[in-house]
Amino acid sequence: MPLTADQDAEIAELRSNPQPTLRAVSPGMEARLYTAHPVLDHGFVRVVDYMGDDAAICQAARVSYGRGTKAVSNDEGLIRYLMRHWHSTPFEMCEVKLHVKLPVFVARQWIRHRTANVNEYSARYSILDREFYIPRAQDLAAQSTVNNQGRGEALTGEEAQRVLEYLKGDAARAYDHYEEMIGQEGQQGLARELARMNLPANIYTQWYWKVDLHNLFHFLRLRADAHAQYEIRVYADLICEMVKDWVPFAYKAFEDYRLGGATLSAGALDCIRRMVNGEEVTQETSGMSKGEWREFEGVLKA
Amino acid sequence: MPLTADQDAEIAELRSNPQPTLRAVSPGMEARLYTAHPVLDHGFVRVVDYMGDDAAICQAARVSYGRGTKAVSNDEGLIRYLMRHWHSTPFEMCEVKLHVKLPVFVARQWIRHRTANVNEYSARYSILDREFYIPRAQDLAAQSTVNNQGRGEALTGEEAQRVLEYLKGDAARAYDHYEEMIGQEGQQGLARELARMNLPANIYTQWYWKVDLHNLFHFLRLRADAHAQYEIRVYADLICEMVKDWVPFAYKAFEDYRLGGATLSAGALDCIRRMVNGEEVTQETSGMSKGEWREFEGVLKA
Amino acid sequence: MPLTADQDAEIAELRSNPQPTLRAVSPGMEARLYTAHPVLDHGFVRVVDYMGDDAAICQAARVSYGRGTKAVSNDEGLIRYLMRHWHSTPFEMCEVKLHVKLPVFVARQWIRHRTANVNEYSARYSILDREFYIPRAQDLAAQSTVNNQGRGEALTGEEAQRVLEYLKGDAARAYDHYEEMIGQEGQQGLARELARMNLPANIYTQWYWKVDLHNLFHFLRLRADAHAQYEIRVYADLICEMVKDWVPFAYKAFEDYRLGGATLSAGALDCIRRMVNGEEVTQETSGMSKGEWREFEGVLKA
Amino acid sequence: MPLTADQDAEIAELRSNPQPTLRAVSPGMEARLYTAHPVLDHGFVRVVDYMGDDAAICQAARVSYGRGTKAVSNDEGLIRYLMRHWHSTPFEMCEVKLHVKLPVFVARQWIRHRTANVNEYSARYSILDREFYIPRAQDLAAQSTVNNQGRGEALTGEEAQRVLEYLKGDAARAYDHYEEMIGQEGQQGLARELARMNLPANIYTQWYWKVDLHNLFHFLRLRADAHAQYEIRVYADLICEMVKDWVPFAYKAFEDYRLGGATLSAGALDCIRRMVNGEEVTQETSGMSKGEWREFEGVLKA
Repeated sequence: MPLTADQDAEIAELRSNPQPTLRAVSPGMEARLYTAHPVLDHGFVRVVDYMGDDAAICQAARVSYGRGTKAVSNDEGLIRYLMRHWHSTPFEMCEVKLHVKLPVFVARQWIRHRTANVNEYSARYSILDREFYIPRAQDLAAQSTVNNQGRGEALTGEEAQRVLEYLKGDAARAYDHYEEMIGQEGQQGLARELARMNLPANIYTQWYWKVDLHNLFHFLRLRADAHAQYEIRVYADLICEMVKDWVPFAYKAFEDYRLGGATLSAGALDCIRRMVNGEEVTQETSGMSKGEWREFEGVLKA
Repeated sequence: MPLTADQDAEIAELRSNPQPTLRAVSPGMEARLYTAHPVLDHGFVRVVDYMGDDAAICQAARVSYGRGTKAVSNDEGLIRYLMRHWHSTPFEMCEVKLHVKLPVFVARQWIRHRTANVNEYSARYSILDREFYIPRAQDLAAQSTVNNQGRGEALTGEEAQRVLEYLKGDAARAYDHYEEMIGQEGQQGLARELARMNLPANIYTQWYWKVDLHNLFHFLRLRADAHAQYEIRVYADLICEMVKDWVPFAYKAFEDYRLGGATLSAGALDCIRRMVNGEEVTQETSGMSKGEWREFEGVLKA
Repeated sequence: MPLTADQDAEIAELRSNPQPTLRAVSPGMEARLYTAHPVLDHGFVRVVDYMGDDAAICQAARVSYGRGTKAVSNDEGLIRYLMRHWHSTPFEMCEVKLHVKLPVFVARQWIRHRTANVNEYSARYSILDREFYIPRAQDLAAQSTVNNQGRGEALTGEEAQRVLEYLKGDAARAYDHYEEMIGQEGQQGLARELARMNLPANIYTQWYWKVDLHNLFHFLRLRADAHAQYEIRVYADLICEMVKDWVPFAYKAFEDYRLGGATLSAGALDCIRRMVNGEEVTQETSGMSKGEWREFEGVLKA
Repeated sequence: MPLTADQDAEIAELRSNPQPTLRAVSPGMEARLYTAHPVLDHGFVRVVDYMGDDAAICQAARVSYGRGTKAVSNDEGLIRYLMRHWHSTPFEMCEVKLHVKLPVFVARQWIRHRTANVNEYSARYSILDREFYIPRAQDLAAQSTVNNQGRGEALTGEEAQRVLEYLKGDAARAYDHYEEMIGQEGQQGLARELARMNLPANIYTQWYWKVDLHNLFHFLRLRADAHAQYEIRVYADLICEMVKDWVPFAYKAFEDYRLGGATLSAGALDCIRRMVNGEEVTQETSGMSKGEWREFEGVLKA
């Protein structure tokens, strides 16, 4: 995702000009501000702005007048308590604004998270760039044989070769025709809002995306998960790193109680009680379906 | 959009089996339920369910125990009052669930309306059909020369011909390759979640979309508007017809106060006061920019 | 909560007039429609309308054209799968509208659930009734000695007596003055929007509340929980009964995976793995804080 | 609303400690940060944090990499265009967090704006202060004689005197009993979550409230309006001043197109066209109801 010289200059300009503020400042986020962190072949995530820090979460939870005289260790304990007990509103008091460049098919999953603010680059108004996501060899995965909604091993040999040729060739031809259709030399030129319909779902788009920390955690729990599609997971993984730098206590609690935790059903809890008491429990005696039991075993062995 | 025989049979089955209910019933919606109303070349809108009617809006506004003994004329007056004064919550008390088939580039605009519930056909899990939106000759519009975000006259002659060939040819080839890539005969077969990235934005998708009447009106005001892209406006226009059958008083008020109304700025109101008093006002003496003045003239002459 | 004769008549009228519909019908909800189910001393919950049933959840998940030919047992399995994997959008396809009468301090907790539509009886516009929540003897609980946000044993003897006298006396006097202040005989009469400020938080208000099933489950998980305040829990418990009648499969899945389930942290899962392997784990060796450990023991022993 | 010495010290501490940041900084907001701006007799609004400025709105609208080299005058024009055409998402890219102290009956109106994040002081967990809103003589208004939902002239003489005595006396007694009921000396002490029900709606509560600029404008349009209740309008008016300091271009556009503008119906626009053409239009020939005509005349004469 090499930026243009102009874009690099704009970013350098923004990073060269610190100003005093009385607001809460997060050093970890200041270090990241504006820089484009690469994802996939042409994508990136840039932190454009943020509001709040770990202390701000506690301040809101206490509806306090200042940062308080409580020890920092109390803040961490409070944050863990809030996370454990699903007190979500204090986490909503932090906000982050990202600039994201991503393939359209990833954007279509992403936008399903409705509690966020979005400004997308308009292909009605502007002309899209010639940039398409083409998977690396190791990411060119076969359909999963056990899960309709998943992928298996990477394709190999001639099949992999052919797939890459199709993806590259079709994207190139579609874009050539897109350019030709909107061109105005010697012709009227098709409306941009129509011409874009010829472009495939691996073309890159970009948007400003603003979200509060609670809803961001919800996004990350679903999208940094092993079941999420790889191409959105890499964005989620990078954003996890950013959040860790921004609100370390909150991120740690999120990691323990959400990312690394698991929700167990009444039936699963009953099995655990029996197992802890020394009973041998099998799928047959568990009361669970095969699918549930397989997932339950996954949790026990992880 | 010819449905399959199975789909037609399913719809006929649903329409053949009335059951008694104690809920509010809207005859206009009952007449439409389940039937696929065509839009564009392969799209449709089907009403799958609805909740409430004009009386339900009034009932909620009055927080009443029954349908009330007030005359129906009072209901209409109340609904007009609520609409005029932006009392939105009573309109939220009606809900509709639609099944919509639409091109992906239209779906991408549509989904920006966040206060709605959506279940989209999954191209991670399932295989998309070979159906693409190809504009009719008269809809193959050139880029507007006055508005970056709009379209002008229809293309003509050879240019129109070439555009149609590109759109059809690229879609056909992209779909052939999609099918070939996911095929599992004699090869592993690319994961569906990856193969879909080769498909262009004029392929059709479908979803269940559920929304309350207030938010539906907001959608319709923006999308049944002359500035909306034609391909989403035809959906909005059809839904307007449905809403008219469903809640006639509310729709009439919406038509008067929103669709046919206009919001004027403080400056525009001042000009109107001067003009009503016989003063000649021009752009130069209006205090408005040229763009604003042009829009203002449009309102005055409409 | 004796309704007036007029209100009873309105409800009887509504229940006496079934009409044919082609929509999905839930017999369990039809049986409940409009009837006021009592809660606390003067409150109630009435189902005013509903949309969808268990089959509608599956229909949306499959984006299907009809009710499908799949066996009902498949529907239950699909619903459990959706609940287990946090696929929330199909549950959003069901909607319910309730008329609720409740004390103001309960309403203030309730309204914190933002993803719902609300129409409240207006005390700016109308005059509130003289109805106050006065707890029964057994609900007149002392402050918890272990939890700042909880209650302990019921008060007894003279103390209980005195509390009841205060609650009743202050409410009666506040309402007498409210009536006197807004009275217009021989005086101007204070504006209703001001006079209401004299009324205590145990006065009853009422509203129409409309919510989708996913967000209703979220509400019920938090408010039918043992940590919720008793006075809102009784509403949640009643609504649970209604939902069970409405969408039995979805409710059963909710009961197993949410109400009766538990979310365990990474640390708690690790302890469980050790315990299942025969290791003795104590708070000291668990890596958990005392509070977490106490909650963890609660889950294991429940 | 005299703060305690501790609170004043906390605020002074926060204001004494500027730190460098690379984020967008709004000098107008920095000047206001943390300071408690008084409203009513004991209330206040404090800006606790903010995100973005006028330039950030344009940056998001352009999905740009930096602050751009466009002249500031272009920014103002773009902001006016966005406001006029209801492009709301760029305004959502600014966010503000306020700490507000307000009477409970005002909080109950305020919370109806759902698209915001709220953390309220908990009366389950904590003890409320003895602070009640008591209107000034000139705000002790009679019920409006023309509008069920409004107020007229101020009460006078003995009636005003009596109302004040009731409000003060009932509040004092309710609080005395509240304190006595939760007291634990020589008795068990009623649970806080129950005792609070004795407190009237003019007691003060406080919360952290965080909202984006688009939704804040929506709040201000409704609550800074002449039809809003005085006691919430004074909060809205103060917040208007803050927004003017924060994002001057956006506020100016809001003032012109929303606060000072008006939405006219199709019928009203038709009347205006006739009037501009020299026709005499009366209510009888206007096609409007009396209520609509009165409002229309108000717009024309304002």
